[in-house]
Amino acid sequence: MRVLILGFGNVGRRLAEILTERTSYPGLDGLDVSVVGITTGSRGAVVNPAGLNLGRVLAWHGSHGSFEGFSHASAMTSAEALKTLDYDVAVEMTPLDIPGQGAAAIGHVWSALSRGRHVVTCNKGPLAWSWRPLRDLALERGVSFLYETTVMDGVPVFNLAQSCLRGNTILRIEGILNSTTNFVLCEMERGLSLGAAVAGAQRLGVAEADPAYDLDGWDAAVKISALANVLLDAELTPEAVERESLSTVSAQRIEDALTREHRLKVVCEAFRVSSQGESRVIGRVRVREVPVSDPFALVEGTGSILRLTTDILGSIVLTEEDPDLSTTAYGVISDLIRLQEDL
Amino acid sequence: MRVLILGFGNVGRRLAEILTERTSYPGLDGLDVSVVGITTGSRGAVVNPAGLNLGRVLAWHGSHGSFEGFSHASAMTSAEALKTLDYDVAVEMTPLDIPGQGAAAIGHVWSALSRGRHVVTCNKGPLAWSWRPLRDLALERGVSFLYETTVMDGVPVFNLAQSCLRGNTILRIEGILNSTTNFVLCEMERGLSLGAAVAGAQRLGVAEADPAYDLDGWDAAVKISALANVLLDAELTPEAVERESLSTVSAQRIEDALTREHRLKVVCEAFRVSSQGESRVIGRVRVREVPVSDPFALVEGTGSILRLTTDILGSIVLTEEDPDLSTTAYGVISDLIRLQEDL
Repeated sequence: MRVLILGFGNVGRRLAEILTERTSYPGLDGLDVSVVGITTGSRGAVVNPAGLNLGRVLAWHGSHGSFEGFSHASAMTSAEALKTLDYDVAVEMTPLDIPGQGAAAIGHVWSALSRGRHVVTCNKGPLAWSWRPLRDLALERGVSFLYETTVMDGVPVFNLAQSCLRGNTILRIEGILNSTTNFVLCEMERGLSLGAAVAGAQRLGVAEADPAYDLDGWDAAVKISALANVLLDAELTPEAVERESLSTVSAQRIEDALTREHRLKVVCEAFRVSSQGESRVIGRVRVREVPVSDPFALVEGTGSILRLTTDILGSIVLTEEDPDLSTTAYGVISDLIRLQEDL
Repeated sequence: MRVLILGFGNVGRRLAEILTERTSYPGLDGLDVSVVGITTGSRGAVVNPAGLNLGRVLAWHGSHGSFEGFSHASAMTSAEALKTLDYDVAVEMTPLDIPGQGAAAIGHVWSALSRGRHVVTCNKGPLAWSWRPLRDLALERGVSFLYETTVMDGVPVFNLAQSCLRGNTILRIEGILNSTTNFVLCEMERGLSLGAAVAGAQRLGVAEADPAYDLDGWDAAVKISALANVLLDAELTPEAVERESLSTVSAQRIEDALTREHRLKVVCEAFRVSSQGESRVIGRVRVREVPVSDPFALVEGTGSILRLTTDILGSIVLTEEDPDLSTTAYGVISDLIRLQEDL
């Protein structure tokens, strides 16, 4: 498969590393991927229709911080590459733009699908703000639109729900899905102020330079919208998700919860409600007191957790422990494997 | 699909109920199942090539405790039904026979596969003692051999590992998979003696009349063998699994663990070891001290948990909460849905 990668941040580089080292992973034997282009917003692009040598790309990018001067460097933008290069799959890995409602990523996905190319997105904007039109476009063009990496990194959330729970109707989704707020709450339990905990998260690369979108629940709202749209057939947008900001939480509230053997956690949830023949999906991001007997209370630092409640099976809980960049990059790989099997 | 059911215990009856009430479950719309026979060891059999009315079968069995006198009653044994009835799928739901090394269930599965019929087994004996021959026979005859219900009830353990972790190599499997020992340990933590806790489990129907196979780790050894054989390509039998019996655990040991913020849990595990170019899979069932910060420590009563560690994704944990008979029956339904899609 000829792959075009949009964006080349930490996860993109880890993906490139795994593809370079793929002989070390027996399960990747047979994965036929040739990266024909990598485009970025500010670090240039590299293009080679015959397939890039990812080891050399990584080495150059590692020492120069951009693609400038590399033998296959190109001035092509993502939009141009999507429209003109010859590729089978576009992998959307650009950063999520919350104030812009994911418009750039949605445009990328739309452009590739319109050309009859498959899309793998790591960017959750397209699912949160434009799920139905993109799903319908992919169906109409007979191509795949995959998105396993958008929520809980590469943990198979969507695959589990779609291929392993058949026959069930999912009634409710609950999760701890934002690393920054979970990390900050754990640090505040240890006595740090909100500001000190956020600064610590930034030093470790867990929080963004502007942590407001995490602290105010926007990132979690985007994730629960993505899950609800795909798994509950909702038409939810992040703006319609009720949010509670972590900045309103006092040290005293955290301590009081601990005294009662509870921990404060930022929990997002979505469920369908019906009244008078009409039904709609409610989405919420709330700071909740979770009893220490609940698996949600054990999620430390950058871990995450998801509970799916269904009508027949009951409820199951999926926990991601100590994720790293490989966990996230795996989501793209699993989508590429699925595509290759379908081709 | 014409289905032959072998065994009609609690789970079989719940399965029949769900099939009877299937219009209440939107996800089961389109599930085309006609039960043409139900055979049991001591309660007779019912056979109707045109399809049994399961509501009437359940009502009769509920009031009479056997099929004797029912309009479609038959003297057919399971072995005869497997060889002579016209069915597409045999569902093996007879009780696990540990001292007999699952021979009867293995015979049933073999008989159906040999005739070119699909098999769904809830009985884990065939996976623990005869996985490779049965898998190979199914491949040779071009039929499906499915087994989602054998471990963790209907929680999609095998489906998750086989269809959602592609590209990964599973390195290690760890779980709390035996309800009786987990229930008994929880009760002993509350101060009950082993004998009183076992008696309580028996009253609630959690433990068998002869609880030795649970307490001595045999049931867990069968489950970890089943998982290891299928997911680690092992040739493990329960006899080769190192076991530790719960009957050696004192109240003092439980209390000491709690003092150190640990809980005792019966944990089974399997992993591959290599030395001098040879590799083999080790299986163990041990009473382990688990720190209260580990999700394994939160498994109460009849819940269960499984951690899969892989080479790329890292580790994920699947937790089953408050299972009931529907959770188990769902495993059969998910296998039947998969079969119907493949037909």
